[in-house]
Amino acid sequence: MKLFRFKFRIALVSALAAGLVSTTLAQTIPFNIQVKPLSPKIINGPLILGKQGSFFVGGREVESNTLSTLPAYASSGNITVDQMYVHFQSPVKAKASSVVLIHGCCLTGKTWESTPDGRMGWDEYFVKRGFSTYVIDQSGRGRSAVNATAINSVKIGKEAPDQLPVVFAAGHESAWTIFRFGSEYPKVYEGLKFPIVAQSGLWQQMVPDWLNSMPTPNPTVPALSELSKQLKKTVLISHSQSGIYPFQTAALSNEGITGIISIEPGACPAADSDLTPYIKMPILVLFGDYVELSARWAPRLKACRAFIEKTNLAGGKAELLVLPEIGIKGNSHMLMQDTNSIQIADILASWIEQRIHN
Amino acid sequence: MKLFRFKFRIALVSALAAGLVSTTLAQTIPFNIQVKPLSPKIINGPLILGKQGSFFVGGREVESNTLSTLPAYASSGNITVDQMYVHFQSPVKAKASSVVLIHGCCLTGKTWESTPDGRMGWDEYFVKRGFSTYVIDQSGRGRSAVNATAINSVKIGKEAPDQLPVVFAAGHESAWTIFRFGSEYPKVYEGLKFPIVAQSGLWQQMVPDWLNSMPTPNPTVPALSELSKQLKKTVLISHSQSGIYPFQTAALSNEGITGIISIEPGACPAADSDLTPYIKMPILVLFGDYVELSARWAPRLKACRAFIEKTNLAGGKAELLVLPEIGIKGNSHMLMQDTNSIQIADILASWIEQRIHN
Repeated sequence: MKLFRFKFRIALVSALAAGLVSTTLAQTIPFNIQVKPLSPKIINGPLILGKQGSFFVGGREVESNTLSTLPAYASSGNITVDQMYVHFQSPVKAKASSVVLIHGCCLTGKTWESTPDGRMGWDEYFVKRGFSTYVIDQSGRGRSAVNATAINSVKIGKEAPDQLPVVFAAGHESAWTIFRFGSEYPKVYEGLKFPIVAQSGLWQQMVPDWLNSMPTPNPTVPALSELSKQLKKTVLISHSQSGIYPFQTAALSNEGITGIISIEPGACPAADSDLTPYIKMPILVLFGDYVELSARWAPRLKACRAFIEKTNLAGGKAELLVLPEIGIKGNSHMLMQDTNSIQIADILASWIEQRIHN
Repeated sequence: MKLFRFKFRIALVSALAAGLVSTTLAQTIPFNIQVKPLSPKIINGPLILGKQGSFFVGGREVESNTLSTLPAYASSGNITVDQMYVHFQSPVKAKASSVVLIHGCCLTGKTWESTPDGRMGWDEYFVKRGFSTYVIDQSGRGRSAVNATAINSVKIGKEAPDQLPVVFAAGHESAWTIFRFGSEYPKVYEGLKFPIVAQSGLWQQMVPDWLNSMPTPNPTVPALSELSKQLKKTVLISHSQSGIYPFQTAALSNEGITGIISIEPGACPAADSDLTPYIKMPILVLFGDYVELSARWAPRLKACRAFIEKTNLAGGKAELLVLPEIGIKGNSHMLMQDTNSIQIADILASWIEQRIHN
């Protein structure tokens, strides 16, 4: 098996600093991760599953008398909302730790399946790598029901229009810059690895997002906590808007969580917050390329850097990997769909295998 | 392999009748279907896939200036709507005909996955039986985006509340009778085979239904037509609200459709309509138990019976299977989740294998 070897850096902060917000004298200690690529034979071969299936976690009953404005369906009754859809596949002989793939804004679990240009998704990669793999649809997204009764309440005049839910759809043009395909639509960054020729396959994946109408905390977080407890040992892998969820889940309880990989998080926990929930588990925060060109993402990377430094100062094991810093260039925000998506998966899987004692 | 053998009936209509709506002198010719159960060894063994993945069919660009009411996301831009999500799994050596599983009202492709009590779903059964299996989310449901921009238009006062979409959610209580679990919630029909103890697992599957706000024809139908053409040979298997879709798809074009199985359809094509699109392919309409006890379903079965008789009179090969008529009792409307779901799948798979020349 061909091995790639490179260095990436763990930031350790000088313990000299005092106070909650301090100037950090960051020290970096280089260390090696041996990236073991999954063999082409396995990637291109059949997928052998010991088990697959789907189920829901969480949910609550809501009574409503605006379920319907149609005579064929009763307007009054109970519905179940806030549950989280989970689809899983397990290899015949699975590693001790499973992985949970958590999609981001305006998307569903489809994020991790076949790429827009038809290559294998990470949902399958991780199974072929030996991990039981759980793909969720966030509460209120995709196959996880949203509570739409307020629409009917307003439609029949029972509530005012300002009581309508906050629902947004990311347009192709704004998604273009948020996903860092280029500085503005339809310009493309030089060397971009997103398969831009198949962009329509990404636009088809996008769904309206009810995030801002969901209860607080977002029901996805307690559902992830319940799922982690069920799984006993799992690595929570989040992306973008859900980037913070594994941390919020760990803050509820560390039970069942063996590690966190947060890919291009919309937010890391604040560096001056209580970091004790995060010091017991290996954490990897991953960013792609072009971050410094983005007014949206550059401050987020900076804040994550501060979080990681503070976490390690408190005794944690947090790492930051910015791909161009190890010579991997051209990755967009949607790096699980970029043309080198398998190379990135190889890094993440190797990190799990070497950092988490199964 | 243990074989079950029973008779079911094809209704052939006397050609004596004249006029569009006529009294039919139905003749029935008994014939044998040899039901070959899938072996427990295969059911309980590993699942070996040659390929799996997901993609979308269809979709159109819509320009809107009410995409968002939030500063973080632009209000103007283009989104893609009406596309249909498709997930597929193929065995290493697949039969010539694939199958497409099309869910019904208020549900998603989850319908066909693990049952609420955790047994194997039909999505996996058909793959283990040798069929490439395609599971869709109807346009505007689940992972197939809905166009939610009208909500924002009303929220900001640009449109009147009556312009809000028609969105309904089936409450547990009304679904109870629609799904024929009992005469009324929470009464249970004697001998019911739905795993009522796990009912919460069904309620978690249900999502708001935008069906009545979709364009006409429902974009799922042309998307199914495009999918059938891509697949070249496929059996469209529909359920309930989508029961009519395979027929509407065949009316667009027969290309790629090798057969139709319509499970408890909300409607069959009208018996006095143009039946020529349906005479070239084997058709099976399937109903469960307790139909005559349901004011909703009894007339639908009757109308399907008339459609089948007329189709056969016109030279078609349509069959009606009402499970209690062959001694299989206790099946609800959600028979793919009933405790004898594998027995029903065995019948359908055997029917495909024996009626359709692969």
